[in-house]
Amino acid sequence: MAQITHLAVIAGLLTSGVPAAAKNEPPAAASKPEPAAAAPSPGEIVAQASSDEWVRIAPKDLLVMNLAADGQGKARQVIIQLMPPPFSQGWIDNIRKLAATHWWDGTSINRVQDNYVAQWGDASEKKPLPAGLATVPESEYTISSQAISDARYAAGFSERDSYAQSVGFIDSWPLASNNASSEPTYWPVHCYGAVGVGRNYAPDTGSGAELYAVIGHAPRHLDRNIAVVGRVVEGIEYLSSLPRGSGPLDFYETEAERVTINSIRLASELPTAQQPQLEYLSSDGATFARYVDARANRRDPFFIQPAGGVDICNVPVPVRRVRGK
Amino acid sequence: MAQITHLAVIAGLLTSGVPAAAKNEPPAAASKPEPAAAAPSPGEIVAQASSDEWVRIAPKDLLVMNLAADGQGKARQVIIQLMPPPFSQGWIDNIRKLAATHWWDGTSINRVQDNYVAQWGDASEKKPLPAGLATVPESEYTISSQAISDARYAAGFSERDSYAQSVGFIDSWPLASNNASSEPTYWPVHCYGAVGVGRNYAPDTGSGAELYAVIGHAPRHLDRNIAVVGRVVEGIEYLSSLPRGSGPLDFYETEAERVTINSIRLASELPTAQQPQLEYLSSDGATFARYVDARANRRDPFFIQPAGGVDICNVPVPVRRVRGK
Repeated sequence: MAQITHLAVIAGLLTSGVPAAAKNEPPAAASKPEPAAAAPSPGEIVAQASSDEWVRIAPKDLLVMNLAADGQGKARQVIIQLMPPPFSQGWIDNIRKLAATHWWDGTSINRVQDNYVAQWGDASEKKPLPAGLATVPESEYTISSQAISDARYAAGFSERDSYAQSVGFIDSWPLASNNASSEPTYWPVHCYGAVGVGRNYAPDTGSGAELYAVIGHAPRHLDRNIAVVGRVVEGIEYLSSLPRGSGPLDFYETEAERVTINSIRLASELPTAQQPQLEYLSSDGATFARYVDARANRRDPFFIQPAGGVDICNVPVPVRRVRGK
Repeated sequence: MAQITHLAVIAGLLTSGVPAAAKNEPPAAASKPEPAAAAPSPGEIVAQASSDEWVRIAPKDLLVMNLAADGQGKARQVIIQLMPPPFSQGWIDNIRKLAATHWWDGTSINRVQDNYVAQWGDASEKKPLPAGLATVPESEYTISSQAISDARYAAGFSERDSYAQSVGFIDSWPLASNNASSEPTYWPVHCYGAVGVGRNYAPDTGSGAELYAVIGHAPRHLDRNIAVVGRVVEGIEYLSSLPRGSGPLDFYETEAERVTINSIRLASELPTAQQPQLEYLSSDGATFARYVDARANRRDPFFIQPAGGVDICNVPVPVRRVRGK
């Protein structure tokens, strides 16, 4: 036993490199059996997607947050993709106005709760909001089926879910639905990295000035109780690795603990050279379907027992920098 | 809109304090309606458990990891509860031997991957293992139904699950089962905080010297593919808030990045005064059932729409310090 090589690698979420096995060639005959079925990993499947399966994210849909540099002077940038219509657009309109007026500049990360959320906004609670923000009703937490394409939803995904009658993807956004009922609605779900709108007790649904990102196991009990407006597509580690707060609800208790937000801008308001060039894998393509299947049934060499299912928040949507940008 | 109070608190996982409403008294008549049904939160339900519903964790089942102090000189202790029989005992016997021989002292945290795991062991891969460690077969990833009480499992929990035919708790450990099949087995699941045994490709199931803790959304595709041996019951924030690695699979690439493990000991081998005194809420009690129901159907004042379900990894088992210890 002592000779065992114990650099034990537990399988990564996305691995790079595409071995021959990933090209669906039959395993070569060999005196030693090939490891398992040598099926491609989810990451290898994604790497094989054709370029037309990747969708560029428009600069108006990207929120770029620059935090103060860390203790070693390293820059920390968090990039958020805002949800497309028809979801949560009332809050998102507010968020675009807040960014355009530079409202968040000089505010801070105020709360980091382990296995839950990192939350930011004005710690003083006294900074006036810009004029013209909408008051968004609770009814916008869900969208009626008339407003979206049931067919595209159904094509995306349909596994057993612990919280809803079904789950699926539209435009590569994870959604849930009570679509077996007589008046079906759809709603975005709180997966890791989801960005939502902090609020007080009902009927206040929040202005959008106070935001949070999920940094733990999907808190899906928040679905339909608070607005999901986007997801972190780059740099979430600058939120998830922050020290946890020590106050009630894990808010930071002192100014020294808070992390200053230097700026939050829509990418469309940045000089072209500073606009992040990102793209996501379309949930309408054949590769996405193969990717979901592989997440539910891991058959790449590390795995012994495919699960036969997967929850929607364990299917992270692939997002990448556009090549060379 | 500008007058809105925007200290927006999104609901905490466990809140302290037990308001009158939590004692199941009818809401008082009032000119203003009480917020929602004023039902107790999951945390308030747990706070009402009687003392005989709390189970002391034996010192032989606690692994105490002392990391090197952080940059501010603050001590960092991570406490792990090992699984009880009949689960994963081959690896756990190895782990007790490794702790007894102080094998981990001077090793390090070597990998931190965002939304996945923190992993530790001997970065050199050359440290000899102690004699007498068992080689544990893959078959021990699951337990046959003869070895456990189906009745207690069934009483614990049974929500729709995305990965298995059922899920439940025994001795307050989250489990899954294919119990609708002719030869049912049970297995522990990878929830946030789960501790598992790193391994290489099959048939190597790992010695137990290389361990990891889940610090992200439950990677349940690892269930039955790698051994779960315990869970972090205190101090996981010292792992989850570490900087993420920059090498392949997010391993740290340099000695400077690694976090030294000063020691790992079974609590039973520590002086009595240093033994952590911890207890968990029994999954056999009435309070646990109420707690699960409240996690699935949040009715405390913040919530508008109870989900009607919950996944097992969104039901964290309450663990606390024994009063005054």
